[in-house]
Amino acid sequence: MPQIRLGLAQINPVVGDIAANVDAVIEWSAKAAANAAHVVVFPEMVLNGYPVEDLALRRSFQEASRAAVTQTAERLLAAGLGDLVVIFGHLDYIDSGAEAARLGRPLGGPVNCASVVFGGSVVTRYIKHHLPNYGVFDEFRYFVPGDEPCVIRVGGVDLALAICEDLWQDGGPVARIAQQGVGGLIVLNGSPFEADKDDVRLALVQKRAQEAHCAVAYVNMVGGQDELVFDGDSMVVNERGQLIARAPLFDEGLMMVDLDLPHAPIEEQLRDGTEVAVISAWPAKSYAPLRPGIAVEQTDIQAKYNATVVGLRDYVEKNGFSSVILGMSGGIDSALVAAIAVDALGADKVFGVSMPSKYSSDHSVNDAYDSARRTGLHIRSVPIKDFADTFHSALELTGLAAENLQARLRGITLMALSNQENHLVLATGNKSELAVGYSTIYGDAVGGFAPIKDVFKTDVWAMARWRNALAVELGEIPPIPENSIVKEPSAELRPDQKDSDSLPDYEVLDKLLEAYVEHDLGAEALKKAGFPADMVSRVIGLVDRAEYKRRQYPPGTKISRRAFGRDRRLPITSRWREQN
Amino acid sequence: MPQIRLGLAQINPVVGDIAANVDAVIEWSAKAAANAAHVVVFPEMVLNGYPVEDLALRRSFQEASRAAVTQTAERLLAAGLGDLVVIFGHLDYIDSGAEAARLGRPLGGPVNCASVVFGGSVVTRYIKHHLPNYGVFDEFRYFVPGDEPCVIRVGGVDLALAICEDLWQDGGPVARIAQQGVGGLIVLNGSPFEADKDDVRLALVQKRAQEAHCAVAYVNMVGGQDELVFDGDSMVVNERGQLIARAPLFDEGLMMVDLDLPHAPIEEQLRDGTEVAVISAWPAKSYAPLRPGIAVEQTDIQAKYNATVVGLRDYVEKNGFSSVILGMSGGIDSALVAAIAVDALGADKVFGVSMPSKYSSDHSVNDAYDSARRTGLHIRSVPIKDFADTFHSALELTGLAAENLQARLRGITLMALSNQENHLVLATGNKSELAVGYSTIYGDAVGGFAPIKDVFKTDVWAMARWRNALAVELGEIPPIPENSIVKEPSAELRPDQKDSDSLPDYEVLDKLLEAYVEHDLGAEALKKAGFPADMVSRVIGLVDRAEYKRRQYPPGTKISRRAFGRDRRLPITSRWREQN
Repeated sequence: MPQIRLGLAQINPVVGDIAANVDAVIEWSAKAAANAAHVVVFPEMVLNGYPVEDLALRRSFQEASRAAVTQTAERLLAAGLGDLVVIFGHLDYIDSGAEAARLGRPLGGPVNCASVVFGGSVVTRYIKHHLPNYGVFDEFRYFVPGDEPCVIRVGGVDLALAICEDLWQDGGPVARIAQQGVGGLIVLNGSPFEADKDDVRLALVQKRAQEAHCAVAYVNMVGGQDELVFDGDSMVVNERGQLIARAPLFDEGLMMVDLDLPHAPIEEQLRDGTEVAVISAWPAKSYAPLRPGIAVEQTDIQAKYNATVVGLRDYVEKNGFSSVILGMSGGIDSALVAAIAVDALGADKVFGVSMPSKYSSDHSVNDAYDSARRTGLHIRSVPIKDFADTFHSALELTGLAAENLQARLRGITLMALSNQENHLVLATGNKSELAVGYSTIYGDAVGGFAPIKDVFKTDVWAMARWRNALAVELGEIPPIPENSIVKEPSAELRPDQKDSDSLPDYEVLDKLLEAYVEHDLGAEALKKAGFPADMVSRVIGLVDRAEYKRRQYPPGTKISRRAFGRDRRLPITSRWREQN
Repeated sequence: MPQIRLGLAQINPVVGDIAANVDAVIEWSAKAAANAAHVVVFPEMVLNGYPVEDLALRRSFQEASRAAVTQTAERLLAAGLGDLVVIFGHLDYIDSGAEAARLGRPLGGPVNCASVVFGGSVVTRYIKHHLPNYGVFDEFRYFVPGDEPCVIRVGGVDLALAICEDLWQDGGPVARIAQQGVGGLIVLNGSPFEADKDDVRLALVQKRAQEAHCAVAYVNMVGGQDELVFDGDSMVVNERGQLIARAPLFDEGLMMVDLDLPHAPIEEQLRDGTEVAVISAWPAKSYAPLRPGIAVEQTDIQAKYNATVVGLRDYVEKNGFSSVILGMSGGIDSALVAAIAVDALGADKVFGVSMPSKYSSDHSVNDAYDSARRTGLHIRSVPIKDFADTFHSALELTGLAAENLQARLRGITLMALSNQENHLVLATGNKSELAVGYSTIYGDAVGGFAPIKDVFKTDVWAMARWRNALAVELGEIPPIPENSIVKEPSAELRPDQKDSDSLPDYEVLDKLLEAYVEHDLGAEALKKAGFPADMVSRVIGLVDRAEYKRRQYPPGTKISRRAFGRDRRLPITSRWREQN
């Protein structure tokens, strides 16, 4: 059987930075060529970054994208890479009347596309068939779906193309590929991280390989983009579904894989009538294959922690910030965010502020300073008592108004320091408190980014323990004070306040929230699942009434099946109550 | 030709309040029956409210909706309304294997549906074919599209059904209706207001009537739902496209229309094979028809003003607030919002706060108090100088940090009063400043609702002038101080600051913003349209960089072709620059 060497470029594009993304394609193609690759494959929409949202609809951006495809082909040739087959994803549009008529769409309709470049020009292109329009995806809004297969012949092997969702749909292009009898399927992806998705993804790729009776090479991007983190997890399985090679999660890199694939037929038309774009009909000379590697799997908590690090790192870097600032209460949430920020950016770029009020316990300040000593971040103290006193002398505030005032004086202090010193403010709220509305809008909710907004409180503790254990393993100082992990959670906005005064234990609460928020169970189903009726009623009431706060909460990294934000779209104005 | 009397129920449902919406259907059906209607038609999704967003995907909500349909039919019969044909929109799901197979979707897939009720049960139902997935709409996310026509025979007349987007699509169900030879087309709608849409809508209904060779009855809801306002504009045109009756914008009511329509054939199958659901094959006895009315059209500015009033009113009422509070600077934005709030809620529910700083001019306070005197709203003064001094003594703030601090001290003051006294806070920013980022996040951007966030500054002035002129016409005191209208716009965050120091004249700026934000023109196209290159570069740079602020801005009523929010979805993290 012919040998073929594939390079899977698991890289980190930047949305909108077409010039830099083209540079990256050239640079990684050169690396692939230096490793004697025959074919190098880049992720979905790599020239544009992903997702570009409504930029896909803007004519100027579409034209720039199209120009970049031509430029990439020419630059590859000029760089002596004309013999390498380079496959990359990009935005394009329908430009032929015949295509428009066949798809029943107007000329100029945007498409999510993969181009195959060889010898300085585009040999063929594939348009994504299946457009995801659920969860965080709105691709029916942006793209016209394609309907034609695309098969190239390289080194005597036929390779079919598909893009991301095409692989996930039963009866999608994979069903047709089985009839075509190709040697391999190449899938370009922009598949965001969520917990446990790596397992699902591997099983899916294996299933499709078996269905299509061919090897599958799956290439995914890495890096953060607003609320999404792409985790890579690029892999190759053979036609029996066996995993041959797998790239590490979250790391940018080029994975080289040698495959022996069946020889293509002599005809240029496949059994189902598909015309093959022939680049080279004859096999390469035989050579000694590389030994492929399979990256060690990450545990669930490890992957979640790493996702928050990458999500924060890329939000900061891609938006041009040089540092972050956060309020440090001595509690577990801010201690974990501090550790994440230091891992993402280095301690010198992280600024903590302890802002004690008259209700703050001594350990609040001590634990915040302990966290700073452990991680090396910059810390200072700005007591808010005088601010609060000035307000109280002008406005007579009691109860909730007085509690919220303290949180807001902290928010205003962080924003003032941010404006004065050019830091990005981090909000330190977790998913459990965001769910039930236990955060003060314009108070602790202040921030440009919220690294753990999709992390339930029980996972906050688990991530903290995991990170400290890693430090011990590496012979380093654990970044998170043990005291912050073990102390009882409290907002400290009034004397002796504890989260447990008004909420169930987090072990129970988080399970209930997961069932309601991520699995959409109604009240009856929750009760059937064993949650007490009064708890169900109280908790989902809190969740429903906090929708308006979540709308104004900063963006933060999605790590779960369903994050707050575009993943879960509910009206603010709604009188639907599950207990009705 | 047979006579038929239609009632078009232009009503205001509440999202999620199924019980109240069912009550409304019964109540308005009784009114229609009291007016001797043969058929009464309600808007799209009237039992659920619209749009319900991800509630459509929740099993408990789907089941409640389905139960409500049966209950509505039974209650209509019990109320002695069994002889009236009642047509209403609701959420439902696919419940037959045959239907699921035909549509290629799983059992239980949600549908946007219209049921025809007569004699205590559902005679037939229609599933919306065309699902809008652009602008503010995400219906591919929520619904399975239908593919079958639905025609009922009432009083010897055949009436076809369609839902909203079905009417807007060329080649949609209307094309088929032309072949069926029906007497009338009934369209249930949830069509949100935007400026000038009433003209487009009328022309569309007329065109479809001519294409389908039948009368068209168009029923739309009224009222606000989060960022949307439904404007009603229900109408009937005859088969030649002549407007026969049209309901007033924004008003809840029942419009009765008598039509003479062609007699249906004897067959129960139409020319295209459609089976008719026969309710009554024989014409009603002849009677003296009512004289239909055509509502006076509203001017563009009048309709925009009314839309902001209804949007605010329903946000407040449907969310259970009893009052609103807003900062009053003496400027035109807060003066206009005050007038809107008083029109929406009454002066007794509106609380203004003047919050002068050391940079505030005398006229700021005077004009704020003048606005309060004119409208009758409650006003008080909370100077922020002491608050600012306390912060400055603790933190050395300069430049932007010091400017923003003032805006944030005002925000915190409003939130404290809101928490203390239970008011909804209104943000008073307009679309021009939201576009270029001239607002302080957590400062003047604080609020639960932002009534004029989709109103360009030039329209702010025009709406103020229009409202004052209306007062003069009615012999009332103009609500907006002339001084607020004519003074030069300034944020008053530093000495002698003027908007015109750093922005083009609003006349020019708003045109540029409209072209960029609402029409998506790129830099080259903007320059070709006559805007100076340096202005284009500077302004669209400001717009692009302010995306993160808009994400955390409160919701507010959409009145334009494209509002900020779900109507315009752009990444925060984006290096795309039009001037590249």
